[in-house]
Parts: sequence; C-alpha cells; structure tokens
Amino acid sequence: MQIITDIKQMQEIGNNWSNSQTIGFVPTMGYFHKGHLSLVAEANKNCDITVVSIFVNPSQFGPNEDFSSYPRDLQRDLELLNQYKVDYVFNPTPDQMYPAGYKTWINVEELSSILCGASRPGHFRGVATVITKLINIIKPSLMFMGEKDFQQIVVLQTMLKDLNFHTQIHPCPIIREADGLAMSSRNVYLNSEQRQQALCLSLAIKQAQEQYKQGIDDPQILKKNASDLIIRAGGRIDYIKFVDSVSLQEVKQAKDDTRILLAVFIGKTRLIDNAALGSY
Amino acid sequence: MQIITDIKQMQEIGNNWSNSQTIGFVPTMGYFHKGHLSLVAEANKNCDITVVSIFVNPSQFGPNEDFSSYPRDLQRDLELLNQYKVDYVFNPTPDQMYPAGYKTWINVEELSSILCGASRPGHFRGVATVITKLINIIKPSLMFMGEKDFQQIVVLQTMLKDLNFHTQIHPCPIIREADGLAMSSRNVYLNSEQRQQALCLSLAIKQAQEQYKQGIDDPQILKKNASDLIIRAGGRIDYIKFVDSVSLQEVKQAKDDTRILLAVFIGKTRLIDNAALGSY
Repeated sequence: MQIITDIKQMQEIGNNWSNSQTIGFVPTMGYFHKGHLSLVAEANKNCDITVVSIFVNPSQFGPNEDFSSYPRDLQRDLELLNQYKVDYVFNPTPDQMYPAGYKTWINVEELSSILCGASRPGHFRGVATVITKLINIIKPSLMFMGEKDFQQIVVLQTMLKDLNFHTQIHPCPIIREADGLAMSSRNVYLNSEQRQQALCLSLAIKQAQEQYKQGIDDPQILKKNASDLIIRAGGRIDYIKFVDSVSLQEVKQAKDDTRILLAVFIGKTRLIDNAALGSY
Repeated sequence: MQIITDIKQMQEIGNNWSNSQTIGFVPTMGYFHKGHLSLVAEANKNCDITVVSIFVNPSQFGPNEDFSSYPRDLQRDLELLNQYKVDYVFNPTPDQMYPAGYKTWINVEELSSILCGASRPGHFRGVATVITKLINIIKPSLMFMGEKDFQQIVVLQTMLKDLNFHTQIHPCPIIREADGLAMSSRNVYLNSEQRQQALCLSLAIKQAQEQYKQGIDDPQILKKNASDLIIRAGGRIDYIKFVDSVSLQEVKQAKDDTRILLAVFIGKTRLIDNAALGSY
C-alpha cells in the first residue's frame, strides 16, 4: 500500500495504467466505518488495482457546516485499509487541491438544487468538482460509492454521462449497525440519548416499506406516517421525499423502485438515510 | 483520414491510444480558413496522431447570436484537411452531444464574465463544457488553439489546471489576411465596404503597438487613440482593454506582454482581435 500525497505523483501513476487493467477507485473523506470498508472490499473483488482517496473536501461544506470539526483519524484509517488489498491511498492537502486563484466549478443543474442540495447550497457543486478532479488525477475505470448518499450517486452518474467520462459508478448497498442505524462518520457526533433517537430514520423507512407492502401507495399518507414517527422520536425533519430513483422527482404514486429519502436533525447532527420502497 | 460521427466509436479509439503516443487535437467549428489549417499543421509537426473535431457548438451561442446562420461547409472542410495528415475527424451531432435531459455545465469564474464574457453571457460556460466533453471523448495530449480567441485560451488553460486534466494547450499565433485582418469564419458576413472598415481592428492594434514603442505606456491614452481610430473607420466598439496576459485584469501601466484585446461591431458582425503590445 503506497501512500501518495502529491497530485503530480498520483497523476503520473494514473497516466501509466495499462488499458487492460480495471482500476477501482473509492473516494472517501476518511474516518472509516464498515460502509467505507465494504466499498474497498467490492473494489478488490471487481478490479485489478484499488485506489482509495482520503480527502475532507472543503468545497462541499457550507460556511456554517462542520468542515473543521469533521472527524479525522488518518492513522486509524490506514490501519483499517491494511486488511484489504489497497494499492494506493491518495491523501492530498486542501491547498494542493484548491490552490490560490482556483476558479473552476461544475454544476449539475436541477439535481443539485433539490433535496440535500436545497438544504446545503453549493454542496453538490463541491462534490461534482472534487470528483472530476480526482477522476482526472486517478483515471479509474470504476468508482465505488455507497447508496447512503443516494442523491450524490445520481448527481455524479448524470455528470459522468453528460461530460462523457469513461469512469462508471458501481453503487454499493448501505451498511447498517445491528439496530438499523445507517453507518456514517457523523454518528460520532451523537450522545447516547441521540444515538437512540437516531433510529427513527431507519424505523421510518421500515414503516413506509411495510405500509407500502400492505397496499398504501399514496406518498402523502406514507410521508405523514413517517413524519409522525420521526417527530415522536424527537427528530427534526429536514425533508422526507418519495422520489423516482433516476430523476429524483417526487412521485404521485409509489412503486417498488420509488425511493424514500430523508434528512433529519438529531440535536445538531443532520443524518440522512434512504431505501427503495419495494426492497423490504 | 477516418470520419467519426459517433461519440462511443471515437471514445473507443481514444481509450486505446498508447501511453507513448502524443495525441494532437484541433477543436474547431469548421468552415476552415488558414488559421484553422495552421493549427492542423502545428499538430502534425508535434504529434503522432492528429484529431480534428468539427462541431458548431450550440451551447456557446447566446439566444440572439448566429448559431443557425454560422457558416458551415463540411465537404469543403474535409477536402482542405486532405492536404494534411489527419488521422481522425470527429463530427458529432448536437443531439448526441447534448441529449434531452442534459444538465452539466462548467464555469470558470471571474475569467468567464469579463471581456467577451460580459458581452456574451454563457459563452465561456458553453466553451468550457464542450471542450471538457471533447477531451473526455478524444483524450488528447495537446490541444491546438489559435490566439485570436485569446480569452478562450486563458479560460481553458485555467480550467485544465484547476480540474487536473493532463491535456495541455499549445497556443498558435493569429493568422492574418495580407492587409492585416485576422482570419475568422465570420469574415464572410462582411460586404466589401465592411471588409475595408474591418481593417480598423488590426490598425488600432498596430497604432497602439507603435505608440507604446514610442514610450506611451498609459493605457488610458492608448485606449483613447485606438477608440478614435475605430470610430473614424465606422466601427462600433464593444470593448478595448489593455490586460495582463495571465489574469486578464486591466493594467495601470502597459508593458511588453500587456495584451490589447478588442471587440468591434462592423455592421452587425462582431469581430475580435488582440496582440501583445511589445510584439510589434
């Protein structure tokens, strides 16, 4: 496992991949949990070379968000990666990625301004831009991303197709704690009471899936019930939406592949979760 | 010379370049003049493979601009290219490049909203986006572009650096008619009287260079004199600026590498020209 901190050095390696090799890339902001590691395992399974980036990307955080306090532990991350076949870890500095005078931004219109994009203006612009930079530096064939950030996957798939990148996204399922909480680096922000409250996201999803299975396909009813459950648990709802899994537009009638997406504040911590209604 | 109209087919060819080959790319909107052909010759001189794209890019034209009337003559263009070693001509349709639901745009901030960007909102967004698409499809090492579109080169160099593309721009000098008019596909719009008037752009540049050589380094004076010359000739000034050749910011004192940039309407035709003050 080679740790690369210099963009030019990583780019040089990327320039010399052979056309016959499949290069797997797992972009991360570090502070690994089992969700991240499942992506690395999936890259190992599908690719000849595995590259993991660890970069807390400042441009995807809003001015009042948690960029500076976002949890970081590079040493622990590297030890965890040692259990896998990771060929390269790319770990650049923000100053290298965004030097003085940086000016270029990528926007995926419509998809970036709804859902999490409505609550976090500029977030997906930062994500789209950093992923373009990382793809140009690393030149992967496949990029492994978790479905917890479902909107992120849709935004980036649209960008890759629109801009004719040859890199494809390989989406991987959400990894959950035993009690159902979706794994997230931000879960460390929760105290023990909040940790219990946080179950309301996965419980609201389960309830919606069960009610859909019982024949309720009106998103308004499903949403009201999810909302009641979350409020009772002490969560503050940012959004609950039932959307088409490709366009992310709200649906009028729920179907198996309709996605329930939700963002909920537990205390000051904003958590997200999602699932296909028919996947229960 | 192979003519490729399908994006996937061109991309397939691009995926299989060998790392040891230098791939030269000349992006054009067709309707070739000697300026375009000088770029092809330069690509031939510097590269193992030469790819020329012919694509009138709708996204860089404003709603009231000349997209539909922009001159096109593919047959003539291909005949002209036959005099050079062109390996591939890439000639996609607008529908292929921007299919229904297209959403992704690249903006190079600051540099895109001044000069031609102030007169043509969205122009450089369209240029930056189409060039990113073409680079991802063709994967060139070097891109040959004429200095007539000086701001375009600066915008794209900034984009390529910011987004960590490995493609580099190889700028090529402006090619002029015998009487000094910078070659442009839009020169066909000029009637014979306007063709004479159009000389005011290169004459204003020459005058500024001469006056600078004589010791006048105050951009205000140089600008006033250029402006007088153009108005006397019947031109309508869009802008005349004396700028730093990297930042494109206006300078307070002219130097050898200060660039005079101008955009002038001759009748309804908007022409541009530029030069370094010290290059006379």
